Amino acid sequence: MAEVKLLGLWYSPFSHRVEWALKIKGVEYEFIEEDLQNKSPLLLQSNPVHQKIPVLIHNGKPIAESMVILEYIDETFKGPSILPKDPYDRAIARFWAKFLDDKVAAVVNTFLRRGEEQEKGKEEVYEMLKVLDNELKDKKFFVGDEFGFADIAANFVAFWLGVFEEASGVVLVTSEKFPNFSKWRDEYINCSQVKDSLPLRYKLLAFFRARSQAAAAASASAPK
Amino acid sequence: MAEVKLLGLWYSPFSHRVEWALKIKGVEYEFIEEDLQNKSPLLLQSNPVHQKIPVLIHNGKPIAESMVILEYIDETFKGPSILPKDPYDRAIARFWAKFLDDKVAAVVNTFLRRGEEQEKGKEEVYEMLKVLDNELKDKKFFVGDEFGFADIAANFVAFWLGVFEEASGVVLVTSEKFPNFSKWRDEYINCSQVKDSLPLRYKLLAFFRARSQAAAAASASAPK
Repeated sequence: MAEVKLLGLWYSPFSHRVEWALKIKGVEYEFIEEDLQNKSPLLLQSNPVHQKIPVLIHNGKPIAESMVILEYIDETFKGPSILPKDPYDRAIARFWAKFLDDKVAAVVNTFLRRGEEQEKGKEEVYEMLKVLDNELKDKKFFVGDEFGFADIAANFVAFWLGVFEEASGVVLVTSEKFPNFSKWRDEYINCSQVKDSLPLRYKLLAFFRARSQAAAAASASAPK
Repeated sequence: MAEVKLLGLWYSPFSHRVEWALKIKGVEYEFIEEDLQNKSPLLLQSNPVHQKIPVLIHNGKPIAESMVILEYIDETFKGPSILPKDPYDRAIARFWAKFLDDKVAAVVNTFLRRGEEQEKGKEEVYEMLKVLDNELKDKKFFVGDEFGFADIAANFVAFWLGVFEEASGVVLVTSEKFPNFSKWRDEYINCSQVKDSLPLRYKLLAFFRARSQAAAAASASAPK
């Protein structure tokens, strides 16, 4: 029997991307929670280049980088497809997954910062949400009507972003400003592939609220 | 007959990635040189999000991002495979392509800068080359003995880096410091998939030397 292990973090959207893909495929796996303050020898040895989660270990062979893992899962296991079938649709899905990782992921945790850094980051997130809102016009999901690769990549804006907003008290997304994005987000959170796989919101909120408060305390005590 | 157009720049490694992939597959294409100071309406309309080359247009449908285009080419056209067949090998190829784009591409043009920015960038490139040198130990190419996806992604370190070094007078790569990387680079430049597709070195050198000199002049006249 195939042995699948996932080194991850319960609060990480990147870790959840892999979990969701495994669940869509119906693959049984062992989840191993990492401690970033004290990384396990297995993590360091499985991802020596980045020393980061998530890492999927399949029959003893490790793979790092969440979207690389998703491609591997889609190519290796039977079950519903994660990428669309048509090559052009696949390209569009990969384009948006890359956009989300390159342009949005880097600025979205700006909510957990303070001061000038937060102000600048908020503006960037706002610009990126405008791009996403424009793309999602008249669309149920990123590629056609099927939840898939790009939507999984977007989990941190579909679910985590709202938690970041609430934790920090900074609200960017309203259905007036981003109607298409908001509509997509509602569909997303309630779709069958996601709704039973989301982490508990109150736990996530408590975790990120503590982070936000720690950032505020650090900022207040920093020399001006 | 399939109509394939490529919007690119003659000196861009990202543009050449796509050209090399099309040549490996034996696909005829029309190359359209862009002017970055005066971008064509076709570019702006084909890649509205990034407004960057390369863009592949196949039967009127545009695709942006060089490595997304490579996946599309590999899935769409007959001919030798660009990605390996085995899913695990494909994951390894994608991992290194991502590493090169995320960690190396961002710092490699540091050679064309001056002062503190160049010093910091040089150190980062040095660290990244150590990672690549370690990975390429006892390997002909990134995945097994076959030239492919990750090697194409690495074209800017295999060929352009040497041009940047010569143009700026800053030399980082020697066969003593990076023996495995140097050996890979020699194999690379002479392999059948690449050797007739490289841009003319003296033209590239003149182009980047002018850029390097412009950076030096700007740095010399900047307030200290």
